[in-house]
Amino acid sequence: MVQSDATRLGARAIYESLRDQIRAGTYATGAALPSSRGLAVELGVSRGTVSTAIEQLAAEGFVEVSQGARPRVAPLPVAANPSPEPATPAAPPRLSPYGQALSALPSWRDYQPSRAPYAFRYGDLSPGDFPAQAWKRAIGTELARRPTRLAYEDPRGSLRLRRALQGYLWRARTLRCDADQILIVNGSQQGLDLCARLLLGPGDRFVIEEPGYRMARMVFGATGAQALPVPVDADGMRTEGLAGLDARLAYLTPSHQFPLGGVMPVGRRQQLLDWARAQDAVVIEDDYDSEYRYDIRPVPPLHGLDTRARVVYLGTISKTLSPTMRLGYLVVPTELVHAFVTAKQFADRHTSLLEQEALASLIEDGGYERHIRRVRRANAQRRAALLQALTEVFGDRVEVEGAQAGLHLVVWFRDLRPDQRDSVIAQALARGVGLYPVDPHYAAPEGPQCAGFLMGYASLDPARIAKGIRLLGEVLAQLDQHRGA
Amino acid sequence: MVQSDATRLGARAIYESLRDQIRAGTYATGAALPSSRGLAVELGVSRGTVSTAIEQLAAEGFVEVSQGARPRVAPLPVAANPSPEPATPAAPPRLSPYGQALSALPSWRDYQPSRAPYAFRYGDLSPGDFPAQAWKRAIGTELARRPTRLAYEDPRGSLRLRRALQGYLWRARTLRCDADQILIVNGSQQGLDLCARLLLGPGDRFVIEEPGYRMARMVFGATGAQALPVPVDADGMRTEGLAGLDARLAYLTPSHQFPLGGVMPVGRRQQLLDWARAQDAVVIEDDYDSEYRYDIRPVPPLHGLDTRARVVYLGTISKTLSPTMRLGYLVVPTELVHAFVTAKQFADRHTSLLEQEALASLIEDGGYERHIRRVRRANAQRRAALLQALTEVFGDRVEVEGAQAGLHLVVWFRDLRPDQRDSVIAQALARGVGLYPVDPHYAAPEGPQCAGFLMGYASLDPARIAKGIRLLGEVLAQLDQHRGA
Repeated sequence: MVQSDATRLGARAIYESLRDQIRAGTYATGAALPSSRGLAVELGVSRGTVSTAIEQLAAEGFVEVSQGARPRVAPLPVAANPSPEPATPAAPPRLSPYGQALSALPSWRDYQPSRAPYAFRYGDLSPGDFPAQAWKRAIGTELARRPTRLAYEDPRGSLRLRRALQGYLWRARTLRCDADQILIVNGSQQGLDLCARLLLGPGDRFVIEEPGYRMARMVFGATGAQALPVPVDADGMRTEGLAGLDARLAYLTPSHQFPLGGVMPVGRRQQLLDWARAQDAVVIEDDYDSEYRYDIRPVPPLHGLDTRARVVYLGTISKTLSPTMRLGYLVVPTELVHAFVTAKQFADRHTSLLEQEALASLIEDGGYERHIRRVRRANAQRRAALLQALTEVFGDRVEVEGAQAGLHLVVWFRDLRPDQRDSVIAQALARGVGLYPVDPHYAAPEGPQCAGFLMGYASLDPARIAKGIRLLGEVLAQLDQHRGA
Repeated sequence: MVQSDATRLGARAIYESLRDQIRAGTYATGAALPSSRGLAVELGVSRGTVSTAIEQLAAEGFVEVSQGARPRVAPLPVAANPSPEPATPAAPPRLSPYGQALSALPSWRDYQPSRAPYAFRYGDLSPGDFPAQAWKRAIGTELARRPTRLAYEDPRGSLRLRRALQGYLWRARTLRCDADQILIVNGSQQGLDLCARLLLGPGDRFVIEEPGYRMARMVFGATGAQALPVPVDADGMRTEGLAGLDARLAYLTPSHQFPLGGVMPVGRRQQLLDWARAQDAVVIEDDYDSEYRYDIRPVPPLHGLDTRARVVYLGTISKTLSPTMRLGYLVVPTELVHAFVTAKQFADRHTSLLEQEALASLIEDGGYERHIRRVRRANAQRRAALLQALTEVFGDRVEVEGAQAGLHLVVWFRDLRPDQRDSVIAQALARGVGLYPVDPHYAAPEGPQCAGFLMGYASLDPARIAKGIRLLGEVLAQLDQHRGA
């Protein structure tokens, strides 16, 4: 409580007491309240305090006041004395089909902070990588600006940021587009949700990678549309599996397949786009971590490979700056811009402006790309530490996938059955190691053949990574002993 | 362009040139490319640059490389030489019912900045009212914190902000709730959208005020549900009109009816809640500008008046801090919390964290409520200036509604027919006065009986308000002359 306005609190207490008495029937309809002088004396407050309370009761329709007379209780259209019914309504809430689909889902608490000191959680970043000084400067500069008026922004977002991203996308991804095709969203999650709402409905079908990004599958599926999973291998989606599939939308991560890490070669890319054109399907290209490639330049996006196919390109800064800063962007085909802009306007008018402008300034002065080069080096070291530790501790016992790019690996334990997974996770956690299974990213309920873990390394330093893997080695060694026994 | 890495750009140009030649069929499948030494000499670049380009082509699957041999063009699954088809797909995009509904709407550019110096636009605020110093301090404090890891936040938003709001809602609105019932959203617009998605679908019906907030009507209607408009008078919605209406949801602004300004008395509030309970309907209470009441204390919300009815309470900081800062909050009945949390998680994971934490710190140290008292005084002066100018210039010619509260009035010109509205708007704009008709907030196509304007005053100082109304007087005087002529 920061206010201490005794008079006001007095008036409020009096107001509440009288209101409750009226509602309880202590004063019947038409009955006069005590005079304000009488109440003031009785309660030991000023007459003004009582008057404030009475004015409030009158404003809300509890009492009627007329010049020179005592206030009288106003007629209420219903019994003022509520019968003792249960405090909550009996019937369950009636929800839309979307609401019912969401209500039926269990809580998915992937956002709850892990207390494990060696949590290999994908999506988390190290605060030490955040460009704190540059960001503080950029934010400070924007806060110092004073516009002529404060008004809603274009639903697409700041034009300055869209122009900065237009240049960035060309420099970093050889992606050519108009600033009017760029839509700033609250992280790639909102981009996925807008695509789902605009393109999918009950009875529709969508293509996803198997395994693939679980959250995309869930958001698309919540519309009532049906998932058509197409298996992936080391080169991403096996696009020959698209033949004959009738779908409205295909969601892919061609630059770095999530979670298995494949990079889709041009032949498959072309096959995908040919299929999309023939089906009149929209391809959602999620380029979620293209900034992180350790040996060669990032692979150019699908977007622009075939101008006759409809590709929605999706980018994010959750992997370069912070997941808590909700900024991402869509590049939308011209003919879909109106629908996307209106959907964004209906969803939340526009993304909050301050961080958009700060990001624009960071891109404009080159700080963003310098930052990316720096964290790419830091993550290359983490990756090397993880690969080395895995080799030293487990050797051939594990198979590693997806090490060329990104901020995570998938580690398969060849000799661990899927049903041993949960006990490994529990025992690892008891030693402070957070492990995250790959299974939830499979649409098929049976999942993979052996136990696999998605190991994110972007929030840990190399020494901690090595220690975490050693601790995991102890867990597996203990398991072997039990087997032997 | 901030980078100038000549080697890289060179490699990229070579990569693009070779890629285009392969795709155009210049090099057939299986054909060998020129040697990298030959290319380097021919192009006047280092051999390393050429190698980088070749590696990229190999990574993308355009060429195959083997030790000691020249790279060969990889087999592509489709004709490498695209036929000259039109650049855009012939068929229009296939959209969901929601996408079709949105595509059919005209662009609604209420966000485009008005260049009129006397723009009476509702929703705009004056940058001079923004607590720039306090906000800068609050942001600076949050930027200086360094968490142990950067990870997704709870979809409900910062627990610290939810606790701060819990206290604020009790102090300012006598609203009692648990912090777990509070959901931080990107402005009240996202709150409306989440309600629409969870509660409404095709074939459902919803109650709205007539006239009422246009954006709410449109967002609810875009789900395929049907609007049931119930007329309002000076006391808000005429709740006797609810009798017999079967609807899933009712959207109201009981503390300050938008746009006409009525405050709903307790009798009608109780009638509304009784109806909602009997119908098992959810009431959305939009408390969009309750901070601004000029004579008496704000009226307490519906929320809590009857614990047996389901009320979703909706608040925003768009009217107290800035519309560009997308922060609002829902207070959700306990039994609906899971559905709302999941919907928010699917929509965009959570609202961006920095401004949430800064707002929490502003509420905690009392700065937010001090700021509200200050802008309430500033807006009371603007309102007085507007009322005085309207009386001086127009006298009985106009009728003013909704002056007790909020940041706008509705001004009816008794002798102006609705069909004269557009020419008044055009002539006013020619004099620098921005006028905004009330008609779009009516669901009925015929709208009101005479011309009315929604006059927001929060972005203008009192002198400018007076000048704007004098200029508007000149417009009307000219119109009278034409009539007389």
